[in-house]
Amino acid sequence: MFDKNIYIRRRRTLLEKMAETAPEGKRGIALFIGNVEAAAQYKNNAYKFRQDSSWLYYFGLDEPRLAAIIDLDNGEETLFADDVEIEDIIWMGPQPSVASKAAEVGIANSASYGTLNILATKALAQGRPIHFLPPTRYYNTMKLAALTGLGNEAVSKVAPMAAEGGRHASEELVKAVISMRLVKEDCEIKQLDDAGALGQEMHTVARNAVKIGILEQEIVGKMEGVTLSKGWGVSFPTILTQHGEILHNHVHDKRIEPGKLLVIDAGAENNMHYASDFTRTLPTGGKFTQKQREIYQIVCDCNELAFKLTKPGVAYRDVHLAAAKLMLDGLRSLDLVRGDLDNMVDAGIAGLFQPHGLGHNIGLDVHDMEDLGEDLVGYDPDQKRSDQLGLGSLRMARKLVPGHFISNEPGIYFIPALIEKWKSEKTDKGFVNYQKLERYYDFGGIRLEDDVLVTEDGARLTGPNRLPIQPDDVEMSMA
Amino acid sequence: MFDKNIYIRRRRTLLEKMAETAPEGKRGIALFIGNVEAAAQYKNNAYKFRQDSSWLYYFGLDEPRLAAIIDLDNGEETLFADDVEIEDIIWMGPQPSVASKAAEVGIANSASYGTLNILATKALAQGRPIHFLPPTRYYNTMKLAALTGLGNEAVSKVAPMAAEGGRHASEELVKAVISMRLVKEDCEIKQLDDAGALGQEMHTVARNAVKIGILEQEIVGKMEGVTLSKGWGVSFPTILTQHGEILHNHVHDKRIEPGKLLVIDAGAENNMHYASDFTRTLPTGGKFTQKQREIYQIVCDCNELAFKLTKPGVAYRDVHLAAAKLMLDGLRSLDLVRGDLDNMVDAGIAGLFQPHGLGHNIGLDVHDMEDLGEDLVGYDPDQKRSDQLGLGSLRMARKLVPGHFISNEPGIYFIPALIEKWKSEKTDKGFVNYQKLERYYDFGGIRLEDDVLVTEDGARLTGPNRLPIQPDDVEMSMA
Repeated sequence: MFDKNIYIRRRRTLLEKMAETAPEGKRGIALFIGNVEAAAQYKNNAYKFRQDSSWLYYFGLDEPRLAAIIDLDNGEETLFADDVEIEDIIWMGPQPSVASKAAEVGIANSASYGTLNILATKALAQGRPIHFLPPTRYYNTMKLAALTGLGNEAVSKVAPMAAEGGRHASEELVKAVISMRLVKEDCEIKQLDDAGALGQEMHTVARNAVKIGILEQEIVGKMEGVTLSKGWGVSFPTILTQHGEILHNHVHDKRIEPGKLLVIDAGAENNMHYASDFTRTLPTGGKFTQKQREIYQIVCDCNELAFKLTKPGVAYRDVHLAAAKLMLDGLRSLDLVRGDLDNMVDAGIAGLFQPHGLGHNIGLDVHDMEDLGEDLVGYDPDQKRSDQLGLGSLRMARKLVPGHFISNEPGIYFIPALIEKWKSEKTDKGFVNYQKLERYYDFGGIRLEDDVLVTEDGARLTGPNRLPIQPDDVEMSMA
Repeated sequence: MFDKNIYIRRRRTLLEKMAETAPEGKRGIALFIGNVEAAAQYKNNAYKFRQDSSWLYYFGLDEPRLAAIIDLDNGEETLFADDVEIEDIIWMGPQPSVASKAAEVGIANSASYGTLNILATKALAQGRPIHFLPPTRYYNTMKLAALTGLGNEAVSKVAPMAAEGGRHASEELVKAVISMRLVKEDCEIKQLDDAGALGQEMHTVARNAVKIGILEQEIVGKMEGVTLSKGWGVSFPTILTQHGEILHNHVHDKRIEPGKLLVIDAGAENNMHYASDFTRTLPTGGKFTQKQREIYQIVCDCNELAFKLTKPGVAYRDVHLAAAKLMLDGLRSLDLVRGDLDNMVDAGIAGLFQPHGLGHNIGLDVHDMEDLGEDLVGYDPDQKRSDQLGLGSLRMARKLVPGHFISNEPGIYFIPALIEKWKSEKTDKGFVNYQKLERYYDFGGIRLEDDVLVTEDGARLTGPNRLPIQPDDVEMSMA
């Protein structure tokens, strides 16, 4: 945990932000529910515990079955948890009291978990607004529904509190939380660098483990062993595939074959639960073919350009579009697309090759605050999300400010089903050279991703040692 | 997956067992809900997918968001799943159709996941019983509640279908499933041996990694890396602690200190989702002290005795009691307890030192079928569960038959809070020598666990190479 004053300060700031949303006496309460254990095989055999990220941000306590209420009118804070019985001590050892847990993060009041519903019922009876964040886990959905008397669907809906009598999650609270978590504090940047170092170590272990004939899973296990040894684990399920054109491929049952491109998209979550997220694409035999190198170099150039353009005052949406333009320029030089670059960018042609956004926010979540709503997190009020393939998937469009922490991850993929669909529906408006493109149906995909901190005067890569990215350096690192 | 005929045969047997519970035309339907992804940080960032074990047993298909209905009156089987759209192909690659998935496991009919509620509603309208297993995850709870019109609590309650108009999970179905899963088939024993080999490899890696000064977590990560490389992962969160007296200690933030006992309780789940579960206790510096060795030898002797007694026709409850008696004999020789052995066993004195059961069933779950109810799984109809500490926690009491697969895990722990409680409440009835016992308050704990298959004429240990267990062998293996 951080020093308790950090949590006290954050909650005070949140209280101030929420004070702007309604006059005193009308603000109600903010209700936070931490995570409980998530069953893997059965209730008492749980996955490794992961606390809710917003809970971690404001309350720090990293254990299951906690809740808290902040009274937005008088600032009173209460932690809810269960004191342990002798039976618990046998199984879990001596535990601190609820009151001492509360004190650890500067909360004055504590009560048993079971009394949470009394306070919620009281607030409801008094007609006070109950602000809560949309739940991300099924338990929290059920718990919030039970506490507020709303249905499972209602508690997951985000709207301003005035709408529908406040019978939903609080847009005001969501926005206040986003405004704080989006800009990383110095203590957080240190953690993100730490997670970056661990993620880079995972990739280094992977690169050294690649060998023709072994199972993909063997490499994945080695990588995950590294982050489990020094951190919480992976920040998301590792993608390690010779079919990079399948974007979210979590199957690792193939043997490493010669001549393939191995996409490794993996990151670490450190013990403070900050994330990293890196992608490298390796030639399985250690050398790129000419055809692979041509596409690789385009993606590499897009990555370098994106980093160069990432700085305060620039909308990240424009970085995405600049990278798309450079990508189309490269593809045009290979005669895979034909036409005017700006017209192709406008027509969204890059989406055929990169059907995802250039990057996203990273923090306590690898897609930071995705549970709070992608548009509220990643778009300024004056920005509208595109409906084009690729650009429409961009999770971060905002004008950059120092403290934004994002991934830059351009990629080129040849997805036969998608190409065939565009061809038959003429989505490409004549820009695509399908005849040449057919020769790439068995190519796979390439993605190259770094994590970037926006600084006062530009940006810097995170983690101590950038993973080799230029094709010559990649080959040399595998020799 | 196993050959599809295995799943066909199992479902046919289940159908026959369920036919005994009601006359034809009155049997209703059996409804099975597979698992969905479980969110770790947010909905789309999930823990590694783990399918429901009973689903795996009868339907084999190892992917999220599947359901099935077996018509118990006419034997008709239907698989419910969603066919993929072009968007899914971009992210997940080409996928087999629902119909071909159904065919893979010998199911004739398939329909979209969304139509599941139509069939459930139809059965409800016709007044047909809907048999289902108690859900283990919150999603399945919510889904079953929605499909049956029952509350979240009702669907988790197990009772005979005649009770309360069948508004609960089906005891008949639970019993039929238990009767099948409890006795392992040859194809399962092969998988259990495979999981055993992997679990033993985890422990060997751990033993070689123990070193004064390193963090416990470093060893845990290495162990988990091994099973992630070759299997699904861990069969339960690894226990690795220098405070073995805390039975379920999942915190690994301590440095390895000299002179301590390191309890490592860990197992693998292989890619077919069968579990192993081994415990060894290592002297951190490679050599036991005299005091440690004395207690260690008692636990080791109990382990050997339990294995020797494990055979068909013997109630495993009696194996627990025989091990308890031997343990008390050993403790008596150290003057920690005083009195007649049989009287001490009857008084449950062993529970002060081993407040858990001697063993449990292992299969697709490490505590096999714990979600279906411990008593229905582990107790014969004529056996009543004890309320003594220790014996009352015994998960497996049944008379053994060939094909039972269990863990033998005696342990001795010195838990100051528990000892003090017994002392002040005089629970020990004068058998305990508290004066001597005080010298063990900082001892920690020892547990030694192997996995055992009950065979036609006795039992055999599983996994290819038994982990060193005799104290001299342990010391030699660490030299």
